[in-house]
Amino acid sequence: MSPATSELTGPSAGRLEELETPCLVLDAARMEANVARLRARLDGLGASLRPHLKTAKSADVAQRVMTSVSGPATVSTLKEAEQFADAGVRDMIYAVGIAPSKLPRVLELHARGVDLVVVLDTVEQAHAVAAASRDTGLRIPAMLEIDCDGHRSGIPPVAHERLLEVARALVPDAELRGVITHAGESYRGGGVAALQAFAETERAAVVEAAEVLRGAGFPCPVVSVGSTPTAHYATDLTGVTEVRAGVFVFFDLVMAGIGVCRLDDIAMSVLATVIGHQRDKGWIITDGGWMSLSRDRGTARQAVDQGYGLVCDLGGTPYCDLIVADANQEHGIIAVRPGSDAGLPDLAVGDRVRILPNHACATAAQHDAYHVVRGTSSVIEARWPRFGGW
Amino acid sequence: MSPATSELTGPSAGRLEELETPCLVLDAARMEANVARLRARLDGLGASLRPHLKTAKSADVAQRVMTSVSGPATVSTLKEAEQFADAGVRDMIYAVGIAPSKLPRVLELHARGVDLVVVLDTVEQAHAVAAASRDTGLRIPAMLEIDCDGHRSGIPPVAHERLLEVARALVPDAELRGVITHAGESYRGGGVAALQAFAETERAAVVEAAEVLRGAGFPCPVVSVGSTPTAHYATDLTGVTEVRAGVFVFFDLVMAGIGVCRLDDIAMSVLATVIGHQRDKGWIITDGGWMSLSRDRGTARQAVDQGYGLVCDLGGTPYCDLIVADANQEHGIIAVRPGSDAGLPDLAVGDRVRILPNHACATAAQHDAYHVVRGTSSVIEARWPRFGGW
Repeated sequence: MSPATSELTGPSAGRLEELETPCLVLDAARMEANVARLRARLDGLGASLRPHLKTAKSADVAQRVMTSVSGPATVSTLKEAEQFADAGVRDMIYAVGIAPSKLPRVLELHARGVDLVVVLDTVEQAHAVAAASRDTGLRIPAMLEIDCDGHRSGIPPVAHERLLEVARALVPDAELRGVITHAGESYRGGGVAALQAFAETERAAVVEAAEVLRGAGFPCPVVSVGSTPTAHYATDLTGVTEVRAGVFVFFDLVMAGIGVCRLDDIAMSVLATVIGHQRDKGWIITDGGWMSLSRDRGTARQAVDQGYGLVCDLGGTPYCDLIVADANQEHGIIAVRPGSDAGLPDLAVGDRVRILPNHACATAAQHDAYHVVRGTSSVIEARWPRFGGW
Repeated sequence: MSPATSELTGPSAGRLEELETPCLVLDAARMEANVARLRARLDGLGASLRPHLKTAKSADVAQRVMTSVSGPATVSTLKEAEQFADAGVRDMIYAVGIAPSKLPRVLELHARGVDLVVVLDTVEQAHAVAAASRDTGLRIPAMLEIDCDGHRSGIPPVAHERLLEVARALVPDAELRGVITHAGESYRGGGVAALQAFAETERAAVVEAAEVLRGAGFPCPVVSVGSTPTAHYATDLTGVTEVRAGVFVFFDLVMAGIGVCRLDDIAMSVLATVIGHQRDKGWIITDGGWMSLSRDRGTARQAVDQGYGLVCDLGGTPYCDLIVADANQEHGIIAVRPGSDAGLPDLAVGDRVRILPNHACATAAQHDAYHVVRGTSSVIEARWPRFGGW
């Protein structure tokens, strides 16, 4: 792999007690279990896994999540595509609608031997991709985005004529690789039956689109679905060739809140140091503010509001009802959850805690590395760099 | 200045139309006017400006905001202190309660000739700072944090005995430089009279603490207040020696919402490209998702909820009632504000918009550089690198 990969730190790598805070901690044991769990699930359903690396943004994590060193993988930015290409990945979908001005970077990746698939849902984009394909003699592979649940982008599966119109604008100059959808609404949760229904809606939408295209004589080899909740609750993936999921590697409080994981599956946390108290208010102040936790308050809409995060001891075990109740840029205010009669733990200035994040994608984005531990050990096994940007 | 400073890009620096998106744009004309406005205000009130550089995180911006190349300045992390020290700043307050484990880095900065002042509000911290001072023979300068409004950290001004107890734990081994407070509650706004009252509460709290310390024989040369709202609404700063403020350099929608600035004072925006539409819903989709805008929804609690940001044309003029109504990681959903009868502008795939942020500190943190323009021109004058981390 590339220079962007692991800085193995060896036996003198130190311990959680010695790290500069705030910083990001990754429990490799939990991560490995999360990956194994989803792989086993999808093997049973006959679909392949194309992990989304937008949460990881790390060549070291990618190595441990992909089924081979060259992929397949999904990315959300061209920066990710370029970084993972540097690390040897050769099979990627850039799963955000392509802006025509980004096509030169897509072509550069193809020139480097990377099969980077773009995604689109408009005739304008299809014309731009077809024109770039004609200009360069490279048939850029593209997938049509299907809107399975009204969440964001994509062509509704019932809009057959719009789907065919975009396909006709793309082919034959560019390559129609298939159809892709994302059940964004599944993050709302709602219990097992609701999650199973989201998964079936996602499957049915993209399979219908594939049939419409094939019926009109277009190829459609890849039929791609993906979200962490539906990947864990789908019971039938007939017609689907691959599943994308990203946050499942780490999980987070939002995923726990909708029942996709348990709290002790969450592999990512932020290490923070106690810097003071407001004892009359029951507050413990730390250096883990929103800059390290992110501004994400995803659990605010769930049954259990976890504030800016759930507070654990150094071994990763949650304190009873202890959350980051509020946060400033570099200050976290820890308090017992409203309505709880739990006591405040005895944490002195200089003591350290680990905070489970609302949303792993947002929290990880605030950091430039994972500090890797295993289980309840505080020994740092490695420091894995992350990247950001576009 | 250091290698971390400006990469001047010259006449071929390009234009907003040519940048990779999403990216961060800074209008230097607005920034300069914002800085000049606060400097003139404070000159009239007889207090000096110690700008908080936690929003800027850029040596280029710092140069244009500080009153001299060596400071004074305020920082929120030791990373900022180290980066600005590299750029020649010699007079800084690290305005987050000191964790004892961070004292070695504080001492390293002093060894480099930087007068870095730490902040504390507990006897434990004072003992740690005094011990480190004894061990090294350097009297570390420290300020006592005063809690003027119950917002976060600090000793309440009425807790005279607690204040003196911390001072006694610090002196004589370390240096008591003064007292410091931050009117965090002023971000709630509430109109001119409320903002003036927040400013007076802030002033009165810290002046009372200074008098208590002096009355007990302690020195207290520096009396420091600071928040952007109170800095702009204080009418009397008697007894105060310096004012800290940070977001005033850029301003943002939260500050506009509480009346501290106008929309056309906001100097920071995120450039994004249209990547699609959901025309039946009145949505325009861009590549400016929450990764580029941040998850900050600070205006959600204000009279006018600006979603994830207010949408402007390429020249920086807001469209009528057009906001980023929702955001995914790399997708922004632009729509007309609920309840408005404004029309959706005719923006095609590939067109570009600029999005004013809810909270400049959070949005800037998502980016590694400012692309500097001036007024309505789309010519890029310079690219100023930013840093992050701790």
